Amino acid sequence: MAVGLGPLSTLHPVPGFELGIASAGIKRPGRKDVVVMRCAEGSSVAGVFTLNAFCAAPVILAKKRASGSVRYLLTNTGNANAGTGEPGLQNAMRTCASLAILAGVDESEVLPFSTGVIGEPLPVEKIEGALQAALDNLSENNWADAATGIMTTDTLPKGASRQFTHEGVTVTVTGISKGAGMIKPNMATMLGYIATDAKVAQGVLQDLLRDAANKSFNRITIDGDTSTNDCCMLIATGKAALPEITQASGALFAALKQAVFEVCMEVAQAIVRDGEGATKFVTVQVNGGATHQECLDVGYAVAHSPLIKTALFASDPNWGRILAAVGRAGVAQLDVSKIDVFLGEVCIASKGCRAVSYTEEQGAAVMAEEEITIRIELGRGTCSETIWTTDLSHEYVKINAEYRT
Amino acid sequence: MAVGLGPLSTLHPVPGFELGIASAGIKRPGRKDVVVMRCAEGSSVAGVFTLNAFCAAPVILAKKRASGSVRYLLTNTGNANAGTGEPGLQNAMRTCASLAILAGVDESEVLPFSTGVIGEPLPVEKIEGALQAALDNLSENNWADAATGIMTTDTLPKGASRQFTHEGVTVTVTGISKGAGMIKPNMATMLGYIATDAKVAQGVLQDLLRDAANKSFNRITIDGDTSTNDCCMLIATGKAALPEITQASGALFAALKQAVFEVCMEVAQAIVRDGEGATKFVTVQVNGGATHQECLDVGYAVAHSPLIKTALFASDPNWGRILAAVGRAGVAQLDVSKIDVFLGEVCIASKGCRAVSYTEEQGAAVMAEEEITIRIELGRGTCSETIWTTDLSHEYVKINAEYRT
Repeated sequence: MAVGLGPLSTLHPVPGFELGIASAGIKRPGRKDVVVMRCAEGSSVAGVFTLNAFCAAPVILAKKRASGSVRYLLTNTGNANAGTGEPGLQNAMRTCASLAILAGVDESEVLPFSTGVIGEPLPVEKIEGALQAALDNLSENNWADAATGIMTTDTLPKGASRQFTHEGVTVTVTGISKGAGMIKPNMATMLGYIATDAKVAQGVLQDLLRDAANKSFNRITIDGDTSTNDCCMLIATGKAALPEITQASGALFAALKQAVFEVCMEVAQAIVRDGEGATKFVTVQVNGGATHQECLDVGYAVAHSPLIKTALFASDPNWGRILAAVGRAGVAQLDVSKIDVFLGEVCIASKGCRAVSYTEEQGAAVMAEEEITIRIELGRGTCSETIWTTDLSHEYVKINAEYRT
Repeated sequence: MAVGLGPLSTLHPVPGFELGIASAGIKRPGRKDVVVMRCAEGSSVAGVFTLNAFCAAPVILAKKRASGSVRYLLTNTGNANAGTGEPGLQNAMRTCASLAILAGVDESEVLPFSTGVIGEPLPVEKIEGALQAALDNLSENNWADAATGIMTTDTLPKGASRQFTHEGVTVTVTGISKGAGMIKPNMATMLGYIATDAKVAQGVLQDLLRDAANKSFNRITIDGDTSTNDCCMLIATGKAALPEITQASGALFAALKQAVFEVCMEVAQAIVRDGEGATKFVTVQVNGGATHQECLDVGYAVAHSPLIKTALFASDPNWGRILAAVGRAGVAQLDVSKIDVFLGEVCIASKGCRAVSYTEEQGAAVMAEEEITIRIELGRGTCSETIWTTDLSHEYVKINAEYRT
């Protein structure tokens, strides 16, 4: 029951970036669960990775190799290869080495990504058995299939694409993501892959991705649980007939930055829209903070409150729970008499108490919508932050009481 | 469906402390919703109060008056008088003044407590109408009725009692509490009242309560939401025929301290056992921390994780989710290769990965119990902390999607 998330829009191919999908039968026979991505020679690659201390074996390896020459990204679903220690690392290296041999590249040029059950040994032979089929399937036109191939508890594939033109040359930015639970990214989402045919040096690309991820992937939360396997990669193939783009490229740099940001934001929000059991897409906007951190503290206190999330599920304008969450967010010397809270455009609390103009009917009308904005004005300064989240439904409990992460 | 919580055990009367219950019909006609407690002249009173910045009007008033002479505690359920601003403060003062007139004491000697819906005006007239009946009902034998009178979403009343003898004189400590949701106390629980007939000066009493609350009320969490109305009061009437107890009283002080602690712990854990929708009572024990704070950070990351809580509900030994929560708890330079995790006595993860000896059957056997201990050994130092919490069930969502806090 994804909220406001339709079929995939057109995902424009990115010259120099191919995707191949195959079935290794990791959890279910016949399911597409292995995705190989090939970057043209000379591509730059940037990555942001989970800050969970229990980061998975493939994350350790991908992080180490991302700064060198990268030619292939190898992703499997159904098994996260996390909490698997040294044998897990060996298994990740072995799948990469097998792909390197088939593809004729050095094994250090292959980056592994895994998502699925934590703590089970990676079924290496099954994955190796699917690699040739994935290579045979490589095509620049396979973004939609790959978006489906990386899904786990996702109900819909997630992707976004932007194009802009500079001096008659079209530049494409296309990306896909997966994730629906264990979502509070800390540097990246569960898995995200974005590619562009612009030519960008690695350092610049890394800055572009870090900035975009901070304002998109790092501002979504479903259940507050940061995954062990979060990774987001940005690849620049350099195939567009344009000079290298740097911070000094003026409007061209700005256009690329905007396109990368928009793709990140769209696929990050798609994860929330497809959040486990989600019936609401909720924007929590905190304005007037003295610091960005206190805006985030307040925003996450609201976004993670099970009481607010169940009230959202029930379409109940239970503003007392919002005030309580703001009050416990740990903001030092918070003067509640300066705080206003809005549900959509309706002022529900003014100067720390129920707004005189507020009626239950106004609140109920906003809460009945599928997409809801909670806006909190702290009255302490000029900083703002926005976070996107879901409600907490019966379906969430059902999914997570039955599915083995 | 409270976990391991039976009918009230015997609550011994505390000489010099009387309780009176009446019905004001705040939410439902006929429901006992007003409790008046009278402390004998010369009693000492200590209190700990919520640190939520949006603390309710009665909390503001009770906190201010607690350090002076206290004769009456006035509690109502059904309305929290929180988020009500200056009019809320006036309403709290007015109910206290009305009780003071009827009882013939100064209004500053009456402390107000409210619990229930946030943000609605306090129904002052209804409460005033019930005061004489509550006063007429005052008796030292009414602890059980009062435990019922302060309930909101609680399914069972909560109380505990301890007695010890010193030089032939019996000293009693009896306490009651309420709370089932919006529970992550920060200095105290939703509402707790503990009385003793020992003679203790206010400063000593405050230290006793702070220590006991820190290890009991401040270590429980149901949903991570600190209430606006948390208060816990400890009253010493001095009616026991013993000299004043101070830190210098040796074994007598130790016995009182232990009794206060045990009563606090029992009524605090009773709140978790009666947690909204709870089907499990879960102890999260974190050992081997370099600091107490990092033990708490890890403990709360586990105790608040919706993924772990739903796995507990499903009796699923999903240890990967526990590792993931430990890893995201924000402990600096966490070396995962030193971490062991136990479910009951079963080692599920050793040195950061699945224990070689572990079988799914062992984990499933522990998870099938109603009372479960998750023990995490960080291997960083000598600090320990223990937190008590519940699972996350369908019933939790149902209760909070339907009940207006």
